[in-house]
Amino acid sequence: MNLLERTIQAIRPIDAKWIDAAERHQLDLTKPPGSLGRLEEIANRCAAIRETLAITAAHPRIVIFAADHGVCAEGVSAYPQEVTAQMVANYLRGGAAINALARAGDIDLKVVDVGVLAPLAGFDGLISRRVAASTRNFCVEPAMSEAEMIAALETGIELATQAAAEGCDLLGFGEMGIGNTTSASAITAALTGDPVESVVGRGTGVDDEGVGRKRRAVERALALHADRLTSATAILQCVGGLEIAAMCGFCLGAAAHRVPVVTDGFIATAAAAVAVRMCPAVVGYLFAAHQSVEPGHGRLMATIGQTPLLNLGMRLGEGTGAALAMGIVQAAVAAFTEMATFAGAGVSKG
Amino acid sequence: MNLLERTIQAIRPIDAKWIDAAERHQLDLTKPPGSLGRLEEIANRCAAIRETLAITAAHPRIVIFAADHGVCAEGVSAYPQEVTAQMVANYLRGGAAINALARAGDIDLKVVDVGVLAPLAGFDGLISRRVAASTRNFCVEPAMSEAEMIAALETGIELATQAAAEGCDLLGFGEMGIGNTTSASAITAALTGDPVESVVGRGTGVDDEGVGRKRRAVERALALHADRLTSATAILQCVGGLEIAAMCGFCLGAAAHRVPVVTDGFIATAAAAVAVRMCPAVVGYLFAAHQSVEPGHGRLMATIGQTPLLNLGMRLGEGTGAALAMGIVQAAVAAFTEMATFAGAGVSKG
Repeated sequence: MNLLERTIQAIRPIDAKWIDAAERHQLDLTKPPGSLGRLEEIANRCAAIRETLAITAAHPRIVIFAADHGVCAEGVSAYPQEVTAQMVANYLRGGAAINALARAGDIDLKVVDVGVLAPLAGFDGLISRRVAASTRNFCVEPAMSEAEMIAALETGIELATQAAAEGCDLLGFGEMGIGNTTSASAITAALTGDPVESVVGRGTGVDDEGVGRKRRAVERALALHADRLTSATAILQCVGGLEIAAMCGFCLGAAAHRVPVVTDGFIATAAAAVAVRMCPAVVGYLFAAHQSVEPGHGRLMATIGQTPLLNLGMRLGEGTGAALAMGIVQAAVAAFTEMATFAGAGVSKG
Repeated sequence: MNLLERTIQAIRPIDAKWIDAAERHQLDLTKPPGSLGRLEEIANRCAAIRETLAITAAHPRIVIFAADHGVCAEGVSAYPQEVTAQMVANYLRGGAAINALARAGDIDLKVVDVGVLAPLAGFDGLISRRVAASTRNFCVEPAMSEAEMIAALETGIELATQAAAEGCDLLGFGEMGIGNTTSASAITAALTGDPVESVVGRGTGVDDEGVGRKRRAVERALALHADRLTSATAILQCVGGLEIAAMCGFCLGAAAHRVPVVTDGFIATAAAAVAVRMCPAVVGYLFAAHQSVEPGHGRLMATIGQTPLLNLGMRLGEGTGAALAMGIVQAAVAAFTEMATFAGAGVSKG
């Protein structure tokens, strides 16, 4: 049994008895019952994930997985492909949005090269776990071989395992990969059966012609691989990305180690949705960070029963939505664990 | 001219040329244009408020204003009136939800007694600025005298002035006052002309009969004071609260000192709406924290042109929504001021 299979086998559904215990604790805290709204739901689920009421969220980490996409040959992005590597360098120098948000939220940040076109040199902080130099163009052949997909999935599992071993009690993830909204759209259409035009958006900002090229690329890919798109892993292999497979593995690994994991935008959610299809119990460990402006994103979250915590009109990826939502999760945990009880504080109940 | 009049006279509308300058700066940062969504809008407005692109949000403070309400005699709350003082004591001991969220967000917290029924003794941290021991029952007489209202407004102004003098670059506010959703509902109905039943909710959790008592109390008050409810100040005096007047003054003071100020839930927003009616330029300085579950809240925000940053099903007050939203504002400022430019980072533009 390989690491992927062992990891899936280790994932247990969260236990409703911990939700019940957490709900009872909430009723003792000095606030009207239910008045913290979704913060209560978050904390209760963290208790079920960690199997304790003594929950913590003091060691948050976001892992960014980066890789390139062969489908860029179809002219699907507003940015040239070299921007993937340039932005990875930007993360490593601390100059991207996710760096600013991670610093603001005191979140540890790791950057993993799962398959950027050309290797990046001269960066100590880079975690180099290159499975391949980019995926192949999924309009003409599968994006990955099965072995590449498994290697990328296991990279994500290993990063989650490492984070859990290092004491991280709250995980998030994000991605960089020029062309990857096209891959996420193809995954979404294949998973949901929704019409392609309803799940293809502007990505980093393509014009109407670019949207047309993305739509046609997804349609060609779905037609080409139609016979194989019957399982989540086959969808991932045929039209996914190396960073998407790694994020999928990261979700599986976080769930196996019982660590709450915050998704990010459209592409990250596509990875999470594949993980949930591979192992439905994963859903109990996920928190959906935000509703992005990508049209397929809301549909994808609904498919896996997730309601986003934030809706701020963002569409950047990199884990930026996860970084913001992790602050909300930390606040929920703080209220749950630090608040006084009615009896302890001498406050009259209603 | 008294402090209130001088403060209102000092408030200038934010200048659109700073919004333009901030928007130009956003275009240089290493992200697709507009991809940070509302974070960009927040940072741009902070630049206009502070009249600089070198914005900061490193010294956030929330001020909680507490007072009691004579309208409690009408049986409008799920909690006994002594809970106001008990919760103030809870804040001062650090055991309430707002304490946990303020600690999680590294937000300085001040607690002001503007008119709790009985004075609290033995708390060093309490800022005692008692204007009166509770308001009067506004179903039978005006809640405050004009002098009391002005004293409470000026208390809020002074707290904002002190915060600005102490270097606070981001302010928030919240309240405690058993009975105060009834006051906020009366203010909302009077300001908007909306039907009373559409702006009265369950508050801390009254049952259907309690909602009926709240609705009838608001209807009686609006009928009793009908001839006088023609200005924002008269509405505040007749059906407001001492803590609501203080929060209104806090908004005016923050705007006069050009400090961004984050509102909280229904009651805090009622205070902000009165401030905007008193001085429309205040609106440029406000950030609406969240959409609470109180039915009048959304309507009130729309009236003053505010779109909430969060929607987490909360209904606690205390500044808890403000605390969460201040983290979003800080993230927006961090991205704006810390991100690399395309040219500086060697990233290709689209």
